Amino acid sequence: MNNTPHVVILGGGFGGLYAARALARAPVRVTLVDKRNHHVFQPLLYQVATAALSAPDVAAPIRSVLRGQANATVLLAEVTGIDPAHRLVRLAFPEPRTLGYDALIVATGSTHSYFGHEDWARHAPGLKDVEDAFEVRSRILLAFERAEAALDEAARTRALTFVVVGGGPTGVELAGAIAEIARHTMARDFRNFDPAGARVVLVDGSDRVLPSYVEANSRDAARLLRAHGVELLLGARVAAVDAGGTTLDDGRRIAADTVLWAAGVATSPLGKDLGAPLDRAGRVLVEPDLSVPGHPEIFVVGDLAAVKDGDGFLPGVAQPAIQGGRAAAANAVRRVRGEATQPFRYRDLGTMATIGRSAAVALVGGRAFAGYPAWLLWVFVHITWLIGFRNRLLVLAEWAWAYWTWGRGARVILDRNSWPKGQDP
Amino acid sequence: MNNTPHVVILGGGFGGLYAARALARAPVRVTLVDKRNHHVFQPLLYQVATAALSAPDVAAPIRSVLRGQANATVLLAEVTGIDPAHRLVRLAFPEPRTLGYDALIVATGSTHSYFGHEDWARHAPGLKDVEDAFEVRSRILLAFERAEAALDEAARTRALTFVVVGGGPTGVELAGAIAEIARHTMARDFRNFDPAGARVVLVDGSDRVLPSYVEANSRDAARLLRAHGVELLLGARVAAVDAGGTTLDDGRRIAADTVLWAAGVATSPLGKDLGAPLDRAGRVLVEPDLSVPGHPEIFVVGDLAAVKDGDGFLPGVAQPAIQGGRAAAANAVRRVRGEATQPFRYRDLGTMATIGRSAAVALVGGRAFAGYPAWLLWVFVHITWLIGFRNRLLVLAEWAWAYWTWGRGARVILDRNSWPKGQDP
Repeated sequence: MNNTPHVVILGGGFGGLYAARALARAPVRVTLVDKRNHHVFQPLLYQVATAALSAPDVAAPIRSVLRGQANATVLLAEVTGIDPAHRLVRLAFPEPRTLGYDALIVATGSTHSYFGHEDWARHAPGLKDVEDAFEVRSRILLAFERAEAALDEAARTRALTFVVVGGGPTGVELAGAIAEIARHTMARDFRNFDPAGARVVLVDGSDRVLPSYVEANSRDAARLLRAHGVELLLGARVAAVDAGGTTLDDGRRIAADTVLWAAGVATSPLGKDLGAPLDRAGRVLVEPDLSVPGHPEIFVVGDLAAVKDGDGFLPGVAQPAIQGGRAAAANAVRRVRGEATQPFRYRDLGTMATIGRSAAVALVGGRAFAGYPAWLLWVFVHITWLIGFRNRLLVLAEWAWAYWTWGRGARVILDRNSWPKGQDP
Repeated sequence: MNNTPHVVILGGGFGGLYAARALARAPVRVTLVDKRNHHVFQPLLYQVATAALSAPDVAAPIRSVLRGQANATVLLAEVTGIDPAHRLVRLAFPEPRTLGYDALIVATGSTHSYFGHEDWARHAPGLKDVEDAFEVRSRILLAFERAEAALDEAARTRALTFVVVGGGPTGVELAGAIAEIARHTMARDFRNFDPAGARVVLVDGSDRVLPSYVEANSRDAARLLRAHGVELLLGARVAAVDAGGTTLDDGRRIAADTVLWAAGVATSPLGKDLGAPLDRAGRVLVEPDLSVPGHPEIFVVGDLAAVKDGDGFLPGVAQPAIQGGRAAAANAVRRVRGEATQPFRYRDLGTMATIGRSAAVALVGGRAFAGYPAWLLWVFVHITWLIGFRNRLLVLAEWAWAYWTWGRGARVILDRNSWPKGQDP
């Protein structure tokens, strides 16, 4: 179209969106491509799944986030391939077409992996997008409904058993929230059983929850989870998942209507198109400036990038994606200007996870702490980073209401198709 | 279970829910059965469809609404039949079972009718439940995305043409909201076209919009719709709906990616089980006390009931359902006590419809008015009747935000399956 260099960004998650924003004043044209029209604030998606928030609270239309940025175009399209040799991206929807670029930032992220057992997916949904959150929400709420309608105790016990597979932040937050729903939100809603009798089991192969956190955080999280009524099954691996529950590798069987998946990460298949070395998880092993070996005009950020950090790699969470997106944007501009790029330096702002009302763990500036102060910090940090002023106000209002009433506002079961396991009339 | 008379209510819409609440202090056991876990505040459902509100704002879990009512049990189940001779209701989910009653209140409502052309449904979704609202919302938002991506002007024009079939309150409110989205909400979001150029067409077979309202309301509504940029095609009937648009019975063709259905009502099939006379629309012709001829222990309320009102029948809107539900509840108690029932007397509280920001029509106490005062009254009435204190606060907050910014917070396109018409990659 014109001579202004064209920077194409694939993906409107943390990496892609912050890359686009970082280019607001750069002398480039920016095109951001995503197959969804909305950015999802992943750290709060579990609250949509547990009926605390509505989807629009954590999802901002990418188009309106970038509305004021005159050099940015947003395209709703599915990326079907990258052709690095010809500097082209192949798109589908509404019709197949190609998009040329001078610099490319790939931020297409990851989804959940069932370790080769893709048939488990229908019995144990994961939590990556808004539809996943609705599916998980419907399953949790339907389980209580099935307990109310159950004709025998075995069926009721199975309905009231919730298994969360994976003890990372998402698993910990899901398990804590389900326990809170059972003990408080649902307390007076049923006539045939006491929801507080629900069993919430968190399974992880490691010997501690939050295995990627410091040990003090893991210890505190385990204590807080148990205090909330969550049963921890550590050092345990899932050998099978079916309609009736899950079997562990030591042969133990947990009969449960609801199994949720918070383990395993599979990266976007676009990484393979780049002709670059991948790690075991399929992540692209990037150069220190986040570019792809052999293709200095292509940058990879977020969950799809394997970025060296000391002996290991940066974790697949929001901050490395945000900071990586900004760094890649700056390097993309340097690149199209013919300047030397700069190595990405990650600044560790700390880690945190919440277990439930007034309970969280955090590590800030090397100091681990837990309980109410960590929870207040968690609230403050998440409200601050949440995209959209409207969303901040509404989420604060929802949380304040929930804090005083123990209620959860988004108890909407969607889609009769999710009535589980062939018992749909 | 015990000797307390059992009142069963089928349906958790306005009729059923207000019937249940009216029985709070009655010496009866109440069981409310609905296939959904939530009551939907129908008058605001079009705002979910037009991205102004999130689903939980207008949907309250029936279970928590009736939480404090000790004599009420809520059952999530699909009603498959009624056996008046044995005083039994047949249920499905989680397993087939029956439920006996001493008095029965049937409030299972209606859905949309395509006048025998059920194949139109996939091209022109209606608006009865939360999933419908998500479908309509996705189609409206996707149309603008397709306009941005369009490669030729014909495709762009088709993407930017919205046809709403049916000029009753739902159709009027949908058309007004779409026009407002195009002219204001989307104003700065696209780079390849001006959203204000979108064409919104409202089609109705009658010679005026809001045909069931007084003529002054219809005139004012037509004026306000035109001022908002809505094109009115009155006295026009739809002869065909397909993937590319709609054809009218005079042969006129409107090429449009988005056709929405706000015409035609089909009542719940349960009416047929009652062995009572039905009107042409399938509604049960009830006695003055709302009972079914020949079955004084069965009452029908809401959209499924044909309730005489002068020469005609009460319309299928919220107030007749609410007042009918309360009256049926009182008569059900009289009936199980062996007392004489009382005829239902409807108290007309007025009618209203909104066209958009600061624009509405209303009829209160026989006086028709329009514009800003009618709109303020509309806001006040809808906030007052909305179920749930939390919802009232959140909806007011959303409306206030939208009023000042022209923004709409719920711009989330769900479900890639809704990418329309075979162009899904």
